[in-house]
Amino acid sequence: MSVKHANDIPAEAVSAGTGTTRQVLIGPDEGPNFAMRRFIMEPGGGMPKHTNSVEHEQYVLRGAATIGIGDKTIEVSEGDVVYIAAGTPHWYSAKEGEPFEFLCVVPNEEDKIELVEEK
Amino acid sequence: MSVKHANDIPAEAVSAGTGTTRQVLIGPDEGPNFAMRRFIMEPGGGMPKHTNSVEHEQYVLRGAATIGIGDKTIEVSEGDVVYIAAGTPHWYSAKEGEPFEFLCVVPNEEDKIELVEEK
Repeated sequence: MSVKHANDIPAEAVSAGTGTTRQVLIGPDEGPNFAMRRFIMEPGGGMPKHTNSVEHEQYVLRGAATIGIGDKTIEVSEGDVVYIAAGTPHWYSAKEGEPFEFLCVVPNEEDKIELVEEK
Repeated sequence: MSVKHANDIPAEAVSAGTGTTRQVLIGPDEGPNFAMRRFIMEPGGGMPKHTNSVEHEQYVLRGAATIGIGDKTIEVSEGDVVYIAAGTPHWYSAKEGEPFEFLCVVPNEEDKIELVEEK
């Protein structure tokens, strides 16, 4: 068992993103089946369109963003719950104001990330 | 894919608890590997000591509680991250004030719940 505060967990920059950091709150060393991560995107930051080889189960903690999933564009804010199936192209653009923070839970499987070229 | 607000998802009372409801934010019908649930405990509510046959990965969204895990008693509040291994006895007691809300992610496996008798 463990109890820790999310703010005490080191954040690493997400190289494919802009103004985006990731914290592994509960990793594969602890949870046998899935990992809980927290992403923080500074206002105006985000991630370009990409796919992952694993699904995402997400919960928006703070702030707001425009996100794209498949061919849909959606505004999300605190309390929104997002499910993105493996292989579905998606992107994030954090709104101005406060940082956009969300949890993203993924299975403990290899995650192959591919950027999707904009046409 | 899906996007929904947590507050729009039906809440069911947790029969073993007091003043406690559970919402299945992303269930096994949607996520192939794990389920994301939100628990809300009214001030003074909680759950007695019990074990689950699956692990819990939790994130405290709001409010505060005293929780017990194994033989440890811990105060938790917003932003705390809790990992409880399968089979570990644990309990919750929400503090007075605002409701205690947390996410609890579990694998898509049968969850056998057993109450633990207090000596």
